[in-house]
Amino acid sequence: MWPTNSLTELLSIKYPVLQAGMAGGPTTPSLIAAVSNAGGLGILGAGYMTPDQIRSAILEIRNQTSQPFGVNLFIPGDLPTGDVDITPMNQHLNTYRRELQIEEEPKTTAGGQDFLSQLQVIIDLEVPIFSFTFGMPSEDIVQTLKSRSIKVIGTATTVGEACALESRGVDAIVAQGSEAGGHRGTFAVPFESAMIGTMALIPQIVDSVKIPVIASGGIMDGRGISASLMLGASGVQMGTAFLTSRESGAHPKHKESIVTSSGHNTVVTKMFSGKPARGLTNRFTQEMEAYIGDVLPYPVQNSLTRDIRQAASKQNRPEFMSLWAGQGAPLAEAKPAAELLSDWVRQVDRLLTQKS
Amino acid sequence: MWPTNSLTELLSIKYPVLQAGMAGGPTTPSLIAAVSNAGGLGILGAGYMTPDQIRSAILEIRNQTSQPFGVNLFIPGDLPTGDVDITPMNQHLNTYRRELQIEEEPKTTAGGQDFLSQLQVIIDLEVPIFSFTFGMPSEDIVQTLKSRSIKVIGTATTVGEACALESRGVDAIVAQGSEAGGHRGTFAVPFESAMIGTMALIPQIVDSVKIPVIASGGIMDGRGISASLMLGASGVQMGTAFLTSRESGAHPKHKESIVTSSGHNTVVTKMFSGKPARGLTNRFTQEMEAYIGDVLPYPVQNSLTRDIRQAASKQNRPEFMSLWAGQGAPLAEAKPAAELLSDWVRQVDRLLTQKS
Repeated sequence: MWPTNSLTELLSIKYPVLQAGMAGGPTTPSLIAAVSNAGGLGILGAGYMTPDQIRSAILEIRNQTSQPFGVNLFIPGDLPTGDVDITPMNQHLNTYRRELQIEEEPKTTAGGQDFLSQLQVIIDLEVPIFSFTFGMPSEDIVQTLKSRSIKVIGTATTVGEACALESRGVDAIVAQGSEAGGHRGTFAVPFESAMIGTMALIPQIVDSVKIPVIASGGIMDGRGISASLMLGASGVQMGTAFLTSRESGAHPKHKESIVTSSGHNTVVTKMFSGKPARGLTNRFTQEMEAYIGDVLPYPVQNSLTRDIRQAASKQNRPEFMSLWAGQGAPLAEAKPAAELLSDWVRQVDRLLTQKS
Repeated sequence: MWPTNSLTELLSIKYPVLQAGMAGGPTTPSLIAAVSNAGGLGILGAGYMTPDQIRSAILEIRNQTSQPFGVNLFIPGDLPTGDVDITPMNQHLNTYRRELQIEEEPKTTAGGQDFLSQLQVIIDLEVPIFSFTFGMPSEDIVQTLKSRSIKVIGTATTVGEACALESRGVDAIVAQGSEAGGHRGTFAVPFESAMIGTMALIPQIVDSVKIPVIASGGIMDGRGISASLMLGASGVQMGTAFLTSRESGAHPKHKESIVTSSGHNTVVTKMFSGKPARGLTNRFTQEMEAYIGDVLPYPVQNSLTRDIRQAASKQNRPEFMSLWAGQGAPLAEAKPAAELLSDWVRQVDRLLTQKS
């Protein structure tokens, strides 16, 4: 019997376990529904999706669950100005395009999705929970969402970012430790100075804000969930641990690479998207880290590498995929999401009873 | 009432809380005795000490406590060959010597202490616990120590290192997460690939070895201790949290810098010693990171910067001191060590009761 806390009450969920809104494919409606139906909170990683794709996904999620769920979006930063020279990077990437037999089309500095159009879908369809990363939406947006009874969750990687998010009016904060897979949410300081381990980060943020704190980074099972609660978190967000689940839409080679990985083979790289993100090392990350030119800013680098990542997926070549994974990757399991969650819940029950 | 576990039984201590063997001054006999008398395990950081200094310290510890305590040493690595050119670094450091009005004496590539002579003191004086970092002693040494009933604790930063230490015959393993202050213990892989957060590292090592695992890195109070136990650790080792204690011999400016620090101002730098170590950023770390020449290997870099660090200490100038600190630094408190430990024990009792 799990006690309710400020987070489970806020989100109307049974277990304070959020499935991270991993963008780029893993968060299928089936995964989200499985997690929410099992008592956690499924979150759609919609950062790269068009408004129409987001709408379809939300309708499909609602077909599969009546429980609360969330949608995660990227907060747009300062867009690179028009004069980004893509030529050197693009020519360098042509090596990989040739190897993957991709037709070398002229590339442009195509941008990301339009945030406000994405957000409008969330408002229109009254999604219960909106979470975001890479920055903060305006106070007006936060107030608009809250006035529609949409709960708002921001992502912080430092105490300063957590305090800024609380001032902005969010309902809860995901505290992202340095162990976390995928993109760093850092928005207020250089990311290198915000690589703070979960063990050190959570208590400091808990001491600095009054709203619920959700621990993330390196949490892989009931042990990590129990530890996070001990640190003062009201709940956890888990990405890698759900990425390998049966319902996850991650590429089979991505899942396989994670469950067979060893303990110290992740790296934080900007080479896929232009923003720092943690993934398994592979040929692409290793060779590209040796590239002496400049990596281009997000979303330009992301759009330049897209055809390579897509071809790698089609051709089952993990050496060119972005194999996002956290430092707990070797603990990941390939099971149905509901089974994972119930395993963890039992483990937490056992740990918290045994130790008292 | 704390239950005994494999670690408390191994070390004959009441609480599974080790005070890290921080080299270079913090671990005074008073600190070690205070921790051991309060039911934890005090450890002398003797890496930089001569055999005579170690002998005196041990005798002084024994004057102040009849409880078990430990001594920590550095495992010597491959010493730099004779042809290290110290001139460019030394000239660069002269800038600081001039500012600190240090006489510019000719420098040599002086080495560290002789490990076997240091170790002999530990054997002769039958120190109850020997811990080490930076590598592994030979199997012969481990067996000799164990045959004298000296318990042996090694330091690992990856699963691979932990397994190697277990095979070598140690009794317990300190698993050092990336949050930890001071020197990285990494010895089997490049240190950058072994910056694994405590939350991710502990469960993986616990799953991989049969001997007790001691969590370290970012653990600052009862919350961190409880969290570590949940992750499967049998105990914790805490450095920064004891460094600011009243009995610690750390420089007052070092203590003050830690307790007044904010959350994201530590950096892992090789600039003080030649080995990577985490400390608070200051003018020296910031300016030296911009130095384009090569940092010299340990112990050469360490001996070159020694006069600067010593002069900075005498002149109360923390901007040139090695302000070792972990990522939990802002949570540190300036209290007597016994009071810190009893605070944490009460906090753990409260947390583990409340959650059940």
